[in-house]
Amino acid sequence: MPQMRLALAQVNATVGDLAANADLVVDYCKEAVSRGVHLVVFPEMMLTGYPIEDLAMRASLIKASRAAAEDLAVRLKDEGCGELVAMVGFLDQAHDVTEKIGIPKNAPTNSVAVMHGGEIVARQAKHHLWNYGVGDEIRNFVAGDTINVVQIGGIDVALAICEDLWRDGPSAAAKAADAALLVVPNGSPYEADKDDVRLELCARRAAEGECVLAYVNLVGGQDELVFDGDSIVVDAAGAVLGRSGQFEPELLVVDLDLPAATPAMPGADERFGGLAIKRTIVSAEPFEAYEPLPTVTNERMPRHEEIWTALVVGLRDYVHKNGFQSVLFGMSGGIDSTLVAAIAVDALGAENVFGVSNPSAWSSEHSKSDAAEQARRTGLSLDTVPIAPIFDAYQEALHLDGLAEENLQARIRAVIWMGLSNQHGHLVLACGNKSELATGYSTIYGDAVGAFAPIKDVPKTLVWELAKWRNQAAAERGETPPIPEGTITKQPSAELRPGQYDSDSLPPYDLLDAVLDAYVERDLGSADVIAEGFDPALVERVITLVDRAEYKRRQYPPGPKVSRRNFGRDRRVPITHRWREKLDG
Amino acid sequence: MPQMRLALAQVNATVGDLAANADLVVDYCKEAVSRGVHLVVFPEMMLTGYPIEDLAMRASLIKASRAAAEDLAVRLKDEGCGELVAMVGFLDQAHDVTEKIGIPKNAPTNSVAVMHGGEIVARQAKHHLWNYGVGDEIRNFVAGDTINVVQIGGIDVALAICEDLWRDGPSAAAKAADAALLVVPNGSPYEADKDDVRLELCARRAAEGECVLAYVNLVGGQDELVFDGDSIVVDAAGAVLGRSGQFEPELLVVDLDLPAATPAMPGADERFGGLAIKRTIVSAEPFEAYEPLPTVTNERMPRHEEIWTALVVGLRDYVHKNGFQSVLFGMSGGIDSTLVAAIAVDALGAENVFGVSNPSAWSSEHSKSDAAEQARRTGLSLDTVPIAPIFDAYQEALHLDGLAEENLQARIRAVIWMGLSNQHGHLVLACGNKSELATGYSTIYGDAVGAFAPIKDVPKTLVWELAKWRNQAAAERGETPPIPEGTITKQPSAELRPGQYDSDSLPPYDLLDAVLDAYVERDLGSADVIAEGFDPALVERVITLVDRAEYKRRQYPPGPKVSRRNFGRDRRVPITHRWREKLDG
Repeated sequence: MPQMRLALAQVNATVGDLAANADLVVDYCKEAVSRGVHLVVFPEMMLTGYPIEDLAMRASLIKASRAAAEDLAVRLKDEGCGELVAMVGFLDQAHDVTEKIGIPKNAPTNSVAVMHGGEIVARQAKHHLWNYGVGDEIRNFVAGDTINVVQIGGIDVALAICEDLWRDGPSAAAKAADAALLVVPNGSPYEADKDDVRLELCARRAAEGECVLAYVNLVGGQDELVFDGDSIVVDAAGAVLGRSGQFEPELLVVDLDLPAATPAMPGADERFGGLAIKRTIVSAEPFEAYEPLPTVTNERMPRHEEIWTALVVGLRDYVHKNGFQSVLFGMSGGIDSTLVAAIAVDALGAENVFGVSNPSAWSSEHSKSDAAEQARRTGLSLDTVPIAPIFDAYQEALHLDGLAEENLQARIRAVIWMGLSNQHGHLVLACGNKSELATGYSTIYGDAVGAFAPIKDVPKTLVWELAKWRNQAAAERGETPPIPEGTITKQPSAELRPGQYDSDSLPPYDLLDAVLDAYVERDLGSADVIAEGFDPALVERVITLVDRAEYKRRQYPPGPKVSRRNFGRDRRVPITHRWREKLDG
Repeated sequence: MPQMRLALAQVNATVGDLAANADLVVDYCKEAVSRGVHLVVFPEMMLTGYPIEDLAMRASLIKASRAAAEDLAVRLKDEGCGELVAMVGFLDQAHDVTEKIGIPKNAPTNSVAVMHGGEIVARQAKHHLWNYGVGDEIRNFVAGDTINVVQIGGIDVALAICEDLWRDGPSAAAKAADAALLVVPNGSPYEADKDDVRLELCARRAAEGECVLAYVNLVGGQDELVFDGDSIVVDAAGAVLGRSGQFEPELLVVDLDLPAATPAMPGADERFGGLAIKRTIVSAEPFEAYEPLPTVTNERMPRHEEIWTALVVGLRDYVHKNGFQSVLFGMSGGIDSTLVAAIAVDALGAENVFGVSNPSAWSSEHSKSDAAEQARRTGLSLDTVPIAPIFDAYQEALHLDGLAEENLQARIRAVIWMGLSNQHGHLVLACGNKSELATGYSTIYGDAVGAFAPIKDVPKTLVWELAKWRNQAAAERGETPPIPEGTITKQPSAELRPGQYDSDSLPPYDLLDAVLDAYVERDLGSADVIAEGFDPALVERVITLVDRAEYKRRQYPPGPKVSRRNFGRDRRVPITHRWREKLDG
C-alpha cells in the first residue's frame, strides 16, 4: 500500500494576529519538511485564531484573512515548502450567499485551505456549525455543503471540520468517496473527563468511514476557553496510530500505509447526502518507499494534573496575550488565594507573582503566617497593607454595620489591589472558587475584583483536592510543596467579623458541591435533584442562592473553563427573572 | 362581509413568573369580553416572558409552561371568557424531535396556543428563529413547520410569530391559505428610528398576503432590552386600521370587516413552501352584525421623547422586577449623572432617588452647587460625603501617583455608594455614557460601579440633546426644568486632577461620536470609516481606544439598549484579540 508521512501541527494561535499565526504555520511547515512529511494539518481557524465571535462578520477581517491565506500559500513555496501539502484553517467567505435577514453579514465561513505548490488548491467550509454550550457559530458563519477529497501521493484524503465530526454524515461521505484518510482540524476546548469521549468518537467515525482518522486540535488559552491539544490518529479498527501530549505545542508525525485511490472519474457529479464531493488531485503517484518512524502515543495526564495544567495554561495565556507579564492578588491565607498563588507561580514564575496581605482586626494569626510561609516556599513577593486606618476613615463618615460593614473591608482591599495594579502594571486576579460564584458568597467590587479569575470554575471540594495533589506532586519530585499544609486543613472563613466561618452562611461544601453538580452542571430541575436523595430544604436553599446570584456572576472576571458547564457563555440566564421551581415537584 | 372585533393585548410580562403572567392574560381577556371582543392576541412568549434564554431548555420550565397554558384555557372559560378566542405565547415542546447533538436539549419551541372554550384548539411553533443582534433562538428553540389557519366567526385567521414576519414565506402562506387576517405576536425590542421600518414591513407583508395584518408587541424592560409596544393593524392597501401607544400597556381594540372564509376541504393535505397548513374551525358562522368603534391610531412619539421614555421604562422595570424600589448614585454635577438623576426621578419618583456628592480637593464649586440645585428642583435626596480623609488614609499606605491616584478617587466614591447601598437597600446606578464606554474613559470599580447603567447606550452628544429636550418639555408643561442649565453648557471634566478636561484624553465629542457611529453602530472597517472623510489619525486613535476597552465594557452594568448596536449581546468580541485593521486600507 502507498505510504504517507502525516503531521498534525498542534499549535497555539492568537486570535486576530494574522501575521503571527502565518509565521507559526511557516515555522511548522519547515519543520515538517525537514522531517520528511507529505501532509501537515493545522487546527481550525488557524490564521485568525479561534473563536473570533462577531469579528467573523467584519468585512475587513474577512478580506484580510483571505489575502493572508493566498499570501501564505506563496510564501510556503518560497520558503521551500512547495511540495508539502498544508491544510490551514482560515476565515473565508461564501460567494453564493446574498445579504438577507438570517444570513450572517458578509457571509463568512469557517474554512480550511489546502495549500500546495504556492497555491490554494481546494477550500472547504465547515458543514455543521457549533451552536450549543460555548459555541455560537450559526450566528457567525454560513455553512458549507462540499466535502473535499484531495489525492496526495495516490491516497485519497477527505476533510471535515471540528463539529462535523460530532454529526452523522461526513464520515459516511468519506466512505462513499472511498477516502483512505479523513483529516479533522479542530478548535475543541478542554473539559475535565472529556478525553475518552474524544478518542471514542474518533474511533467510531474512523470505523464508519472505513478509513484512518486524524484529529488535530489547538492548544492554549483564549479568554475563558483552554484548548488542550490531544491530537489523535486512529484507524478503522480503533488502533491508536499516534497521540500527542496535552496543552503544549507539538508537531505529531505519523507514518501511514493506506489503500491506493481508485481512479477518479473526471467530471463525475458525486454527492452524498447533502454534500457535494469535490475531488482534487495533488499527486497521483505514490511517494517513494521509506522506513516508517516508530509510533508516538503519549499517555493522558491523570485527572488532577490535567485540570491543574488547564488552569496554569489558561492563566498564562490570558496574562501574556493581553500584554501583561505579572499578576497581583490578595493573599488572605485561605485556601483559595493560596491555590491561585501556586497556579500563578507555575504559570508565570515566582518573580512575576505579587501577593498582598491586607490584615484587619479580625484576621487570624495563621492567615498572616500562612501567606508569609507560602511566599517563603515559592519565592513570590508578598506585601502587607493593613486596612484599619482606611476602614476607620470610611466609618467616620458612613457608620456602616452588619453586612455593609463586612463588605466595606473586602472593598477596601480591592481598591488597594487596583491601586497597586495601576501603579505597577500587574494584572489583578480574583481568587473566588465556583462554589462561591454559584451561591454569590463574595463581595461584589471586593474579592470579586480582577481581570481574571483562575479558579472560578473549580468547586471548593476540588480546590482542596488540587492543593493536596500539587503538594504531593512537588514531594514526588523532591521539591518543596508550595502550599502550607495549614491552609488545606483549616476551617474556611472570610474573616470579615469575629468568629465568622463559611459554614454560618453555606451548607457543608461536600453537600453544596453535590447539589451544584446536579442543578448547574447537569441542569436538573429541583424535583430531579431531590429525587437523587438530597434534603428538599437544602435543595431549596441552594437553588435560591444560585438563582439570586446571577448579577454578581455577570460582573465576575473571566476564568478558565474546566467543567462541562461553567458560569460563562455556556449557561445563559436572564439577570431579571422570577422562575422558581416548585420544590414539591 | 363578516365583522370581527379584534384586540391586541400590549402587556408587560415578567420573565419566569408564570402565575403573574397568567393573571395578566385573564385580566385582559375579561376586559376584552366586556368590550365585545371576538379575538384577543397576546405577545410572543406571554406566559414565560421574553427572552428566557437558556431557561428555555430546562425541562421543569417546559413542563410548567405547558401545564400553565392548559390551566389557563380552563380558567378563561371558568371566568366567563370561554367564547373569546385568545392567542397566547408560551414555551412548548416539539414532540417529534429526539435528543441529538445540535438540537436544543428537551426540544423547546417558541409557541402560541389558540385557546377557546376551555381548550387549546391549536398550537403553532415559530418557524424562523431570531439568531442575530441580541437574538439567540437557534440555540434555544426547535423551529416549527406548521402554519395554523383558525376560522373565527367565518373568517380565516392565519398566525405567524415575530421573526417569521421578517422572512419571506408566512405571508405568502397566509395568501395561499386564503386567510383574511394574519396575526403576529411579537417580542420586538425598541431601537431608535426603528418604527417606520416596522410599519413599512407590516404593510408590505399585508400586501403580499392580501390580508389584514395585526402586529402585537410587548412593553416594558427586561435586562438590556426595552419593548416599546407600538402594536399595529394594517390592511393590504397599507391603511392603518389601528395603532397603539408606545411603552405602556394597552388593549388596542379594532373592528374589522373581512372576507368570509371559503369552505375548507376536510382532510385536504395543504402545504405551502416548507409549511404545512393546518385548519381549525372555531366558529364558521359570522358574528351578529354590530356597530363598529372608531379607529384608534396613536401618534408616534417624537424621537427625543421616545428615547427618553425607553430609558425611563428600562430603568423602572429593571429596578422593580429585581425587587428594588429606590436607586443611589454619585452626583458629580456633570451632565451624565445629572441626566441619570432626571431619568430616575421620572422613572421612580423623587422620593426613591438618592444622590451622593463626593467632593474632593479638585471638585469645582459649580459641581457641588449644580448637584444641589438639581436636588432642589426635583426633590431628590442629596447626601454629601467628602473623600479627602479617606483618600489621605489610602495614600498614607500606598503613595500612588498619576493615573493610579486619579482612579483611587473614583474608587473611593464607589465604595461609599456600595456601602450606602448595602446599608439602605438602594440599587446603585452607574452614570457613564456610550462614548465613555466605547473608549474606556472610565475607572473600572470606580464610576463604572452599579447594578444598572441607564445611559450606557446614549452617546455624549445625545446626552446633551436629551437634557435640553427634557428641560424644554418641562417648560412646555409649565414645570420647573429638572436639569440645571449650567450642567449642559459647561466643559466636561472628570475632576480627578486640577484643570482636567475630557478633551485632554478624547477627541471632541461631535467627532468622536461620528467615528463611533461608523465603527461600532455601522460596523465599518477602518478604511471605510476614513473613506467617509475622517482624519486617519483620528480614526486610528478612536479604533485603538475601542478595541482596548473590551474588558472594561464586559464589567460594566447592563443598561437599556436604544441604539441599533449597543455594547451588549449584539456585539460580541473576544476580550483577548489582536485584530488591528491596517489604516492604509
